[in-house]
Amino acid sequence: MSDDDPGLRVPLNKDLRITLIGTGTIGLSFAAFHLSHLLSPSQLTIYDVRPNLSSYISSALPQFFSSKSSTASISDIRIATSLQSAVQDAHIIQESGPENLAFKKELWAEVEKYALEDALLWSSTSGIPASAQAQSMISKSRLLVVHPYNPPHIMPLIELVPSPHTDPHIILQTQEFWESHGRVPIHIKKETTGFVANRLAFALLREAIHLVNEGVVNVGELDAIVEGSMGPRWAVAGPFKSYHAGGGEGGLEAFFRNIGGTVQACWEDAGRVDVGGGWEEEIFRQARERYGKVDVGERDRVTRRVLEVLREEKKKGNEQTSDP
Amino acid sequence: MSDDDPGLRVPLNKDLRITLIGTGTIGLSFAAFHLSHLLSPSQLTIYDVRPNLSSYISSALPQFFSSKSSTASISDIRIATSLQSAVQDAHIIQESGPENLAFKKELWAEVEKYALEDALLWSSTSGIPASAQAQSMISKSRLLVVHPYNPPHIMPLIELVPSPHTDPHIILQTQEFWESHGRVPIHIKKETTGFVANRLAFALLREAIHLVNEGVVNVGELDAIVEGSMGPRWAVAGPFKSYHAGGGEGGLEAFFRNIGGTVQACWEDAGRVDVGGGWEEEIFRQARERYGKVDVGERDRVTRRVLEVLREEKKKGNEQTSDP
Repeated sequence: MSDDDPGLRVPLNKDLRITLIGTGTIGLSFAAFHLSHLLSPSQLTIYDVRPNLSSYISSALPQFFSSKSSTASISDIRIATSLQSAVQDAHIIQESGPENLAFKKELWAEVEKYALEDALLWSSTSGIPASAQAQSMISKSRLLVVHPYNPPHIMPLIELVPSPHTDPHIILQTQEFWESHGRVPIHIKKETTGFVANRLAFALLREAIHLVNEGVVNVGELDAIVEGSMGPRWAVAGPFKSYHAGGGEGGLEAFFRNIGGTVQACWEDAGRVDVGGGWEEEIFRQARERYGKVDVGERDRVTRRVLEVLREEKKKGNEQTSDP
Repeated sequence: MSDDDPGLRVPLNKDLRITLIGTGTIGLSFAAFHLSHLLSPSQLTIYDVRPNLSSYISSALPQFFSSKSSTASISDIRIATSLQSAVQDAHIIQESGPENLAFKKELWAEVEKYALEDALLWSSTSGIPASAQAQSMISKSRLLVVHPYNPPHIMPLIELVPSPHTDPHIILQTQEFWESHGRVPIHIKKETTGFVANRLAFALLREAIHLVNEGVVNVGELDAIVEGSMGPRWAVAGPFKSYHAGGGEGGLEAFFRNIGGTVQACWEDAGRVDVGGGWEEEIFRQARERYGKVDVGERDRVTRRVLEVLREEKKKGNEQTSDP
């Protein structure tokens, strides 16, 4: 950010106050994240219309947050009893409420009445653009989508999707917040349907459904294929970097020169199944039979270990690069 | 395999003899794999029409194989001087020659003349079906595609793609070989264009190219998105397992009930770029500018660490599951 930055800066220290609205899975996971990263746990406020909010949080949050790994404690969280008291002092107001445009439009118009002039307004939505959410606001410049990859207390990616009205300084401050907390905030330049991560994942999922539907492999085999190949590969180097490496000296261009024909043949032969297209029953059955109820805690524990290795290596790489 | 298995078994011990034909990148990587896993290094034979093969291997193989991590040494490899002497004693004959149907058809017809009756015949092709390769053979039952995810001395996945003529016992023995060596061999039930892994990866790549082409994100941002989200996620749990978990108690069915609308909207909005469609210049430029020449050794070192964590955890999981 330039020195003549006109906006107030979000204080990235113990004075920072964050308010979360909504306490579903995503809201609680963000609560766990903030609780682990804030310098003083009393900086975190939670608001929801849910009855008995305090006891709900005490019982539901521990599956996301272990006080063993933090000096903070769930009991330090401030539970707000009205929207006004929840937001009026906050530097960051982050909503993870229902995926419902009417709800979000009304919420932001209401929040706007009480919030500090420079508060950052973040929505966790996975699909409702900021420009739609801001329709009833007087000033639309502070709102943007801050979309996590679930669960946000573990996964590094944060998609920042501003509307055309969002002030560039608001985007920069949001990026700075997440970067300073070790996350990977990526600025999505257009309000694209489904943003980027889900579009990519769903493109692969569509082909996966097609191949299982055609009997080429079953659900468990398809997962084993991804776990044994592009999963670990893309954890280390994304698709462009991987194929750029695959082309050797000539990079991505050589890659396409070598096997562009196969790539195009695969694209032309790709499946175009639709939701509700009749493949569901058999594939849902295979997933139930193969996995039953997935132990998400176990998955998250292994994911943390993988991410720890990647963080360590990235840090090493950065240290080497910054050597004089 | 059943007790009344009529076929000879490949000896998974120090009597096993493997012959590799072809010494390009894939051939050398397989050589490194076998050298690390065979009980006696003299079991490995390499054949190629390349001049000065022996000195070529001595100079090119060390980038794939370090004798520090093995009791074997590159000098133990037997270099064959004719196809006949290369294949006549081998239990496994694995070709990684040029991606050229005429070459492979002729090779297998020739190999068939000299090979043991029960030798397994494997092709590393990434796209030419076994049924096409076998066209000039008298007995087509021993040949199948054994397609690695590059580089095979590191990545776990092996796609086994038999032709309709391949003997089921040959497939089973091939599976047994790779499983006993800690790999993930998956039987692809139909000779599908591009097999499975590449089809999946290319489906995502197509959407990635579309999004960069539309200016939604750039090449480096797109890679960072994948590295911070589905890469590590799918390394731990493939797409079906992940979305089945994402649906909570209701599994994959609940996942589609909750966000099937968004999935379908993404599918309908998906890009359909083609190879040669005019996006190349800018995207190749971004890849060059962002990555220059990728340090593949570094990527492979980090990938090994990630795979080591995953193997450890899988072993732990298996031990727990098999507890009485």
